[in-house]
This record gives sequence, C-alpha cells and structure tokens, in this order.
Amino acid sequence: MSRYDFASDNTAPAAPEAMAALAAANHGFAPGYGDDGVTAQAADLVRAFLDADVEVRFLASGTAANALCLAALCRPFEAVLAHAHVLTDETGAPGFFGHGLGLVGLAGASGRIEPGALRAALDAPEVSHRQSPAALSLTNATEYGTVYSAEALSVLVGAARAGGLGVHLDGARLANAAAAGFDPKALGGLGVDLVVVGGTKAGMPPAEAVAIFEPALARRFDARLKQAGQLPSKGRFYAAPFVGMLQDGALLRHAAHANAMARRLAGRCPFPVRHPVEANGVFVEMDEPALRRLTDRGWAAYRFLDGTVRFMCSWATAAGAVDALAEDLRAIV
Amino acid sequence: MSRYDFASDNTAPAAPEAMAALAAANHGFAPGYGDDGVTAQAADLVRAFLDADVEVRFLASGTAANALCLAALCRPFEAVLAHAHVLTDETGAPGFFGHGLGLVGLAGASGRIEPGALRAALDAPEVSHRQSPAALSLTNATEYGTVYSAEALSVLVGAARAGGLGVHLDGARLANAAAAGFDPKALGGLGVDLVVVGGTKAGMPPAEAVAIFEPALARRFDARLKQAGQLPSKGRFYAAPFVGMLQDGALLRHAAHANAMARRLAGRCPFPVRHPVEANGVFVEMDEPALRRLTDRGWAAYRFLDGTVRFMCSWATAAGAVDALAEDLRAIV
Amino acid sequence: MSRYDFASDNTAPAAPEAMAALAAANHGFAPGYGDDGVTAQAADLVRAFLDADVEVRFLASGTAANALCLAALCRPFEAVLAHAHVLTDETGAPGFFGHGLGLVGLAGASGRIEPGALRAALDAPEVSHRQSPAALSLTNATEYGTVYSAEALSVLVGAARAGGLGVHLDGARLANAAAAGFDPKALGGLGVDLVVVGGTKAGMPPAEAVAIFEPALARRFDARLKQAGQLPSKGRFYAAPFVGMLQDGALLRHAAHANAMARRLAGRCPFPVRHPVEANGVFVEMDEPALRRLTDRGWAAYRFLDGTVRFMCSWATAAGAVDALAEDLRAIV
Amino acid sequence: MSRYDFASDNTAPAAPEAMAALAAANHGFAPGYGDDGVTAQAADLVRAFLDADVEVRFLASGTAANALCLAALCRPFEAVLAHAHVLTDETGAPGFFGHGLGLVGLAGASGRIEPGALRAALDAPEVSHRQSPAALSLTNATEYGTVYSAEALSVLVGAARAGGLGVHLDGARLANAAAAGFDPKALGGLGVDLVVVGGTKAGMPPAEAVAIFEPALARRFDARLKQAGQLPSKGRFYAAPFVGMLQDGALLRHAAHANAMARRLAGRCPFPVRHPVEANGVFVEMDEPALRRLTDRGWAAYRFLDGTVRFMCSWATAAGAVDALAEDLRAIV
Repeated sequence: MSRYDFASDNTAPAAPEAMAALAAANHGFAPGYGDDGVTAQAADLVRAFLDADVEVRFLASGTAANALCLAALCRPFEAVLAHAHVLTDETGAPGFFGHGLGLVGLAGASGRIEPGALRAALDAPEVSHRQSPAALSLTNATEYGTVYSAEALSVLVGAARAGGLGVHLDGARLANAAAAGFDPKALGGLGVDLVVVGGTKAGMPPAEAVAIFEPALARRFDARLKQAGQLPSKGRFYAAPFVGMLQDGALLRHAAHANAMARRLAGRCPFPVRHPVEANGVFVEMDEPALRRLTDRGWAAYRFLDGTVRFMCSWATAAGAVDALAEDLRAIV
Repeated sequence: MSRYDFASDNTAPAAPEAMAALAAANHGFAPGYGDDGVTAQAADLVRAFLDADVEVRFLASGTAANALCLAALCRPFEAVLAHAHVLTDETGAPGFFGHGLGLVGLAGASGRIEPGALRAALDAPEVSHRQSPAALSLTNATEYGTVYSAEALSVLVGAARAGGLGVHLDGARLANAAAAGFDPKALGGLGVDLVVVGGTKAGMPPAEAVAIFEPALARRFDARLKQAGQLPSKGRFYAAPFVGMLQDGALLRHAAHANAMARRLAGRCPFPVRHPVEANGVFVEMDEPALRRLTDRGWAAYRFLDGTVRFMCSWATAAGAVDALAEDLRAIV
Repeated sequence: MSRYDFASDNTAPAAPEAMAALAAANHGFAPGYGDDGVTAQAADLVRAFLDADVEVRFLASGTAANALCLAALCRPFEAVLAHAHVLTDETGAPGFFGHGLGLVGLAGASGRIEPGALRAALDAPEVSHRQSPAALSLTNATEYGTVYSAEALSVLVGAARAGGLGVHLDGARLANAAAAGFDPKALGGLGVDLVVVGGTKAGMPPAEAVAIFEPALARRFDARLKQAGQLPSKGRFYAAPFVGMLQDGALLRHAAHANAMARRLAGRCPFPVRHPVEANGVFVEMDEPALRRLTDRGWAAYRFLDGTVRFMCSWATAAGAVDALAEDLRAIV
Repeated sequence: MSRYDFASDNTAPAAPEAMAALAAANHGFAPGYGDDGVTAQAADLVRAFLDADVEVRFLASGTAANALCLAALCRPFEAVLAHAHVLTDETGAPGFFGHGLGLVGLAGASGRIEPGALRAALDAPEVSHRQSPAALSLTNATEYGTVYSAEALSVLVGAARAGGLGVHLDGARLANAAAAGFDPKALGGLGVDLVVVGGTKAGMPPAEAVAIFEPALARRFDARLKQAGQLPSKGRFYAAPFVGMLQDGALLRHAAHANAMARRLAGRCPFPVRHPVEANGVFVEMDEPALRRLTDRGWAAYRFLDGTVRFMCSWATAAGAVDALAEDLRAIV
C-alpha cells in the first residue's frame, strides 16, 4: 500500500466545493452540448476570473484541450515553440490532433523559456524543409513549479506576436500561479489567443476550460471539439465544478494551500531542492538508492524529466502528510 | 423555457446510484491513469456484465471511444462498413481519429444492417482507388430504437469475420438492448473485437467503457488513449459510475424503465410511429407545422436523420411527463 | 494482349513536345526544389496561359495536388462540397491529406453541379455535429466529359464566395475544356483560390501545376508540399513538360485532337451515348454481355461510376483506332 | 551565376541510360497504375539487384516513400528510432503521413547509429505517456557519407527485431553504399521489412522504388500509395529509369564514379574533412568567412546539420570540376 499524496496533483480527490456543485447541477433535464444554464453560469465565472470577454468551452481532458489549441494555431507543416522539457510527455498528442505539426523545444531555466532562445528561434531563416514556427506555447505555473510574472510573459508573448505567431497558454496550474501572485486578469492584455484554465489539477473532477481570446478562432470551435471527442453531451458535468470552485473563491484558496504545502515541504526537505518553489511542486535531488529507500517506505514518488524527484502538493495535501514525508526524507538521507 | 425530457437520452441528470458511487470514490489519494482500485473494481463489474475476460478502459467520450476503436481496426486507406444513417452525425470523428479512414454506408431497415447489403460490400472487388473494408461497425440498440438479436448479430459478425474484417460494436445504448432481451454475455461468442459499453446515455455522468475482446488490440491501448486525450488522469471519476450502476443491477433496471416509457409514449402517440419501439426511442411521422405547434408548447423536439421526429426516454423520464407529452401531441394533431 | 487506347487518357505515352523539353532541360547542374530556370520559365508560361499573376508550383501527382488544395481550404472539422460522383475515386486522399475533412456530394447532371444543390448546401443550418462546408471543389472539364462555361462557373463560384467558402478547381482536363471553348484566362476573374492545371492527362509525363490565385494561401506552400512529398528535388522534371507543351500551343492543339476523337467515336458509336460529348470522353450505355464481348475482342474498357462504359481519347488517339473500335462496337451490338 | 555541381546529389541531370529508357518506354498505350510491362521489368531488375523475392513499387518522391514506410510500421502513438541528425529535415513528413507518429533520435558517430544507443532506447521502460518504439529507421549510405557494413547493420537490425520492432532502410544512396562495398543482396538476410531503393540521387529522373520484404505489409499497399498521391497513373515513367540504370549495371558504375569524385575532392581539400569519406559526400570544417569567400567565387555550398559544409558528388561530377573546386578551396584557406 503506497501513499499517493505527493505523486501528482491529480491523485487527490475532488474538492467539496466542486462536488457540491456537481450534485447541485444534477437536477432536471438540461439541453446538451453546452447549451445549458450551468455552462452559461460557469462561462460567466471564467470570464470574471480572467476579466476578459472571451468565449469559454468546458471539456474533459487537459491533454486534448492543449493539443486542440495548438492544432488551431498551427498547420501540419508548421511548428509550435515550447519549453524543451514539456515536449515528450503527452504521447505525441499535439502531433495527433495537429496532423504531424512540429514541436520545437526552447531552452530556459526551471521551466521558464529564455527570451533569447525564443528570439533565436524566431530569427532562424525559413526554409521549406523545416517546420517553421506558427505558435508559442507557454505554461504557467510551469512544469517545474515556477511562475512567470506578467512582465516575463509579456516579453515572450510580445516577441511571438511580433514574429506573427499565435500564443497558447497551458494553465493546468493557472490557479497555482494565481495564488503565487500572477494575475489571470493580465492575460487579456498580453495578447494570448487561447488559454486552458485547468480544473483537474486544481481540485475538480476532470474538467478544463478553454478560453478563446482571439474571436476569429471561435468560429466552428464546437465542431472542432465535437470531432475530437471533446464536446460533452452532458456539458453541465464539466461546467459545474468551475461554478463550485469559482463562485466563492475556492479555486484560489485551495491553490494557495497547495503552494503553502509545497513551501512547507521544501523547508523541511533535507535533500537539495532544485527549482524555486513558487507554486505547488518540489523537485528534489536524490540518487537512486535514496529514492528506493523512500518508495520502500510506501511513498509513491517518481523521477521527473530533469532527473529530480518530483513531489506535488494539492488542495488536499495535509500538513501532517508533509511532515510525515519530511520525517521519512530525513530518515533516508 | 423548454422541456428537454425527450430531446435526447443525454438531457437527463445522472442516476443516484452513479452519483453515490462517484461521491464514494472521492476519498483519499489514488494513483492516476486507471491504476486505482475503483477502476479495477469497475473493470471486474464490466467483465461480469459481459461474462468475458476482456481488458476494460474507462473514458469520457462516446464519440472518441467509438472513433478510437475504428482507428484501431482500420488503416487510413481502408474503410469501415456501418449503417448508412449513422455516418454523418459525429463531425467526421472517425476520419479525424483514423486519419482519413473511409466510411461506407450499408442499407437496412430501422437501423439494422441488411445482411445482403453487407455481403454485397464484402463481395465488391478490391481496387486500389477505393478504400476497401477493414471493419464492420454495429450499434445495439440501434440509432432507430430497434434491437438486434444475438442471432441477427451473429450473421453479420460471422460474415464480416469470414471476410477478414474486424468488428466494433457501439453500445451507447447497450443497456437498453439488454433490457429489451439482448444478452450482453453473448457478445464474446459472436467474435466482436471491441465493444463500447455506454454509460452516459444509460444515466451516468459522462463515462464510457471500452471492452477489448481481441487481446492483440490491447497492446499499447493506454498510449493510444493518452495521445487522443482519453486516458483520464483521475480515472476513478469515469470508473465509479460503472461501479454504482453495475454492482446492484441499476443499469438494467433504469434501462428497462426507459424502454417502458418509450412504449408508453408510442402507445399514446396519435401520430404514426415509424420504427419498432424496442428500446428507448420513439420516431414519429409529423409534418413541419405540427412540429412547430409542439415546440411552441415548450417541448424540445428535433427531426432525425430519417425525417421523423425523435423522442428519447431515459432512466429519468417520468410517466407523468410521457402523459403530458402525449396529451400535447393529441392536441396538435 | 489488350488495347489500352481508350481505357483512360493516362494510358497514352507522353507527347513529343513534352519529351523534347524534358531532354532539353536535362543539361547541367541546377538548383533543387523549384529554384531552377526551367521551373521559372514554366511558371511564366502557366501565368500566361491563365493570364493571371499567380504563384505556380509543379508537382508529380494530381491526386496529391487536388487533395493538398482541399487541405489548404478546409479544416478537418469542415467539409468540401463537390459533385457527388467524384467523391469515391481517390482512396480517401482528401481525408488523408486533410486529416479527416469531410466530403459532401452535390447533385448535378453529367458532372456539372446544379446551382440549386449548391445553394441548398450553403443554406443548411450549421450544427456542430456535422462538418459544415468550407470549400467548393469544381472540375473542368468534368468527369463526365462535359464542360462548364465561364458563366456557369461564375454562378457557382459566386454563390460559394458569398457563403464564405474557398474555391478549388481540378483542371486535370483543363486543356480539354479550353479546347472546347472555355477560356482559362477567365478563371482569375471568377474568384477561384487554387487551380490544378493538369499535365499528365494532357499528354505530359507525370506533371501537374498548382496555380495559387489567393496570395495568402501561398505562404509556406513549399513547406506544405515538402511535408506531403510533393516538393520535387529535381523540379525541372515536372516543369519542363509544361514548357514543351505551353510554349508553342501544343497543349491546346493536342487537347483539340483528343476532343475531336471523342466526337468521332460518339458519332460512330451504335450504343446510346449518355452525356454530351464536349471534351475527350464518351460514356456509353452497354449491358454486361456487350461489354464482355467488347473486352473479348481485346479492348480494355471499364464501367464508370454512373454505370456507363467510359472511353477516353487523348492526344495520341489515332483516327484509325477510333474507327477500329467503332467497327467492333457495331459488331457486338 | 552559381555552380551547383556540389550543392547536392540531386542537382545533377539524369544519366543518359535513364533518359534513354524513359524514351524507350514512351511508346504506345499502356495500362496505368503499375500494371504495365515496363513496371514489371523494372520490378524484376530490382528483385535481382536485391536478390530477394520482394514486392516492388515505383513512385516519385523519396520523402513520401520513406514516410509511407514508417507509417506502415508505426502507429500514431508509437515512435520510430532513427539517427538523431536525420529527424528534422523533412518538414515533419513522417508525422504527416503517420498521423503524429513520434521520432526518437539515437546517437552515433558520423551518421551511424551506435548499438548501445539503440539498446538503451529498446530497454527503456514503456509508459503510456510516451511514444514507445515500433520501428527502426536506418540509412545506407548515411547522411554523413559513411557506409554501414552488413555486419554493423546486422547488429542493429537484430536488436530491433528482438525488441519487436519493424525495420526500414532509407536507401536514397543505396547505390553509393553498394559501390562502396555494401552488398544489397545482404538486406534480405538481415531482416529488414521495407527498403527504399533510391533512384533520384543515383542519377535518375525523380524515381524511387519501395521493396517490401515483409509480405504482410504488401496487402493493400497500392491503396496506401494511391491515397497518399504516390500511385502514379503513368507508372512506366517511374519504372523505366530503373530499367535503364539496372539492366546493364549503370547504377553501380555511376555510383562508383560519384564515390571516387568524393575521395578525389577529400584528397585535394585543404580544410579538415570531418567524416570518413566512404560514399559520395565530403563534409568540411570551414568557418563562416571562408564559406562566404567560397560562395563569392560562385560555388553553391551549404552548411549541414552538424555545422560542416557539405559537398556532394554525383554520377555527373566531372574530375575537372573537382579540381576547380579544390583549387578555389586552396585559394580561400
């Protein structure tokens, strides 16, 4: 019996606010495919969260949501620029949804793309035997638990737009970024085209919201979703969790807790912590025997792309669990 | 304010058994991507339901589930044979998931493929400038509310297998077929490769199960799902409804109710009913002015592919609602 | 030993003008991928032929050329409108190149789309569970040997453009249409986006030209071609035939001969001829025993999509061959 | 006016033997799509060249030929293992033809995959969020002008087969490898599935042959080609060059000349030559100012993927041209 508390931020159960909203939405008959009242209410709440007059769609899968956004911005013979370390973990979903579109990895410390790397990619001469960039894909909070500031994003988005690229933001952990001080209301001013506002990792049952900032992209977006198996017939089940988590601030509250637990763990961790702990992840330098000793003690923990061992905190992470883990970490040093 | 009771079988809320199981599954931390205990339990229940030692996967979307099955059976330069009337309603999802695979429509009354039409398609000479058949796709209960018997399916599946084709069964309404007398335990003996056991239309929150009868197809199926955005990180949310609905027979009980409500409606309907009412749909011949009078009275009702007006019943359809609709139908004749 | 003279217009050898140009182009070293002088010269000649300031690309395959044009105009969740009878003969190439894009067949006599059918398709309400039209695909001369007038095309293209669709013209037999009186110089004024000027069926070695009327579509078109295996490294081999056939009018001269041979055959044919013989094809009503008697006499002849037996003439069709075929036809009536 | 003699091996004209065969094949009417006598003769010659009872198809594009082979061996959620440096130069063609299939680069000096790198890739644990390997793609002669021995290939192919992978060999420069001592007749014994026998770079007009060693892969291969725009209607134009070049040994004779010219150039080159000169390429270490001085003297020359400047020789490379280039190289050191 392993403990999965820190294995990922999707091992947690759904938060009570989300579950209550799900139960509340489950009354009576409702039109399908997003035409119901719960979906309308949730879309309003997402618009308020972003302070932006955007089209919003709710769907089941973050993998699909992000891949569909990239497919909307990039043709098969073009490429998406993204942080080098996020390219390999989705079983090629962008290429599947985007019919072979290319992914070009950009360097950058701790998950944040280096502006110079982006500029170099944009300045590379176009040749027809390469997939030239058509979109920039950003992630906030990043895969390494760091958070872009609005200023840092502005530099990247600005360079991308100046180069004629579309911009996508993967907000699987946007709540964590927001709780760390990044204002989601700044996104509209930055010039992003498509933002995925993550629900699943934020403590919802499976649910993601796509916010379409660029109106031209909204045309036939439902057909795009339907074809890709992402236009839920019972739309309220993906919208209701957003109602529950956004209507009274639970989303940010829970994310703040997750971030605090990560800081607590980092503070108690006897192993070196690699990246700045700005959101809900702690990346620890630990050799293989140490990791084995830890998993022998019943903790599910994995090596991440950069070779560190990753510990993720969530809305459900208990301080006691952090302390228990920290104690075991000290015991195995 | 319209009443959506009969607009589709996905306008109903989720059944209490499914919701209770969801709530019950929502405790503690659990491994992701289907490695959790709830998923294991649900898979066992699906295997028992089918009386077959099959691999089972749970996912969000019936559109995706069926399209992925077809992609698993059919290469892009090949074709799927299916009932003519089910080809156009998924925004081309099979072609998207299957990279341009072809769909060839077969004739057949009331949604059931005519064996002669299948044989003709199988006997057509292969030419390289056409997409030759590689798979047969069946639906039970059919889109027209009829139910194949095991014998009828056996003829079709046998012919397909003899022709070297794989066989997929879309069981979005398999529960309704089962409640109408079709034994799901017969599927294993028929020679099907992949079956989608529908949860959504049967009264669950969005949830579908894919049963993989042909073991060779199970290899790397999780990678197939992950790439297509259909390997849920929080797998228990798609498995739990199956636990709730299968563990005590709620699935069949609710489907029997839905079927009964359809018969009740057909019995009270003053307009001609087109297809045999064997499952949970009633297809009514009604001209445009009559339909308008009906929708003016607040009923959401739509014309279906064959030109009839379709009324779907579900686990949640109340006898009183049937009678109210019937009364309005009589009033507008 | 069968005679393939009439089996298709691609059973003929290449015309001497094309072969001579090929041989002439085959001297010295030349830059690859269309940057050579022969390609530039051929592009100029195509522009003159069309009297339009268009980008021109030369490639190997008409199937690929047309499918790539459709993919450029239509996203996977959208559909191409085309004459009903041309949808099934390319092994699903448009869906392969276009990632599952839909094809919607329009009715029309003898290969010409009926304006009413187009209007009905354009007027159909958009729903997200169907692939809505994004492009109109036309063919001139048509698959049934008829020729659209500029006026007739103008009606169709105008309606399509008014509906927001892009327009593609498959000109595999544009030379035959031109020889029959359709002025290729009219295309620019009609509002087409992409035209494939066919070389192969016109008497060249395999070679097709894509003329890009809409400048926005030219961006990264070479990358599109390269990814699809249609940016030839030795570009001059696909451009030279156009030089040979366009520089002194051989293209039209040969097409006029092919058309004349078709008329000659139609005039001597004892079986009913179904469609107006305006280009280089003759479509004959002939039952199965008659067809067998004909093929027993050594003529390769096939039934076409509409059930007629098709006889195609080409630049190489000899009057004597027509007369020999006609004699055999009379013998088997 | 630049000299393109060394810019690539596809800047050369076609060899006289190929052109003569083309002219000879261009007589009379012939059935289309590979059913003609020239295609049959060419297939026999390819079988003799490989000493293998394989299915052979002739097509236009090496990019397409290789990408289609990979698509035949690898599903979208799987990956192809290939030398790291050959992944980026085809505008993503494998992902386009293979619907997002993955490419995993393996290390190895001078274009030859290191067996240890292959074993490491094969030994990596399979996880569903990565594309696991399904095929190994080899190139002989390699992109860096080196040649695998049969023994070296045997190690790689054996490891791949033991790991359950299919094997593809890109033989764009198989003739050069053969002229350097690699016996194409060894391929059958190695266990390869699909081999592309290159014609274009070997001195033919655009033409490639696909040899299908694994019989199961031959099923519906013509439909695969047709859908992808690679089943030429006038097949003889792609087969005839193989007749001309194989029937009297011109293929190897010309390749031996190309290889000799590369050795001559390497011997006279005052700059360091990076990779062993075993086939027809010379890769030279030259800084940017030197390269500019060279191109200022009228030579088209490019930097390759590894940063060297590549000079390719072909059947048409004259010894005098080599000497002229060498003289200019010496002048700019």
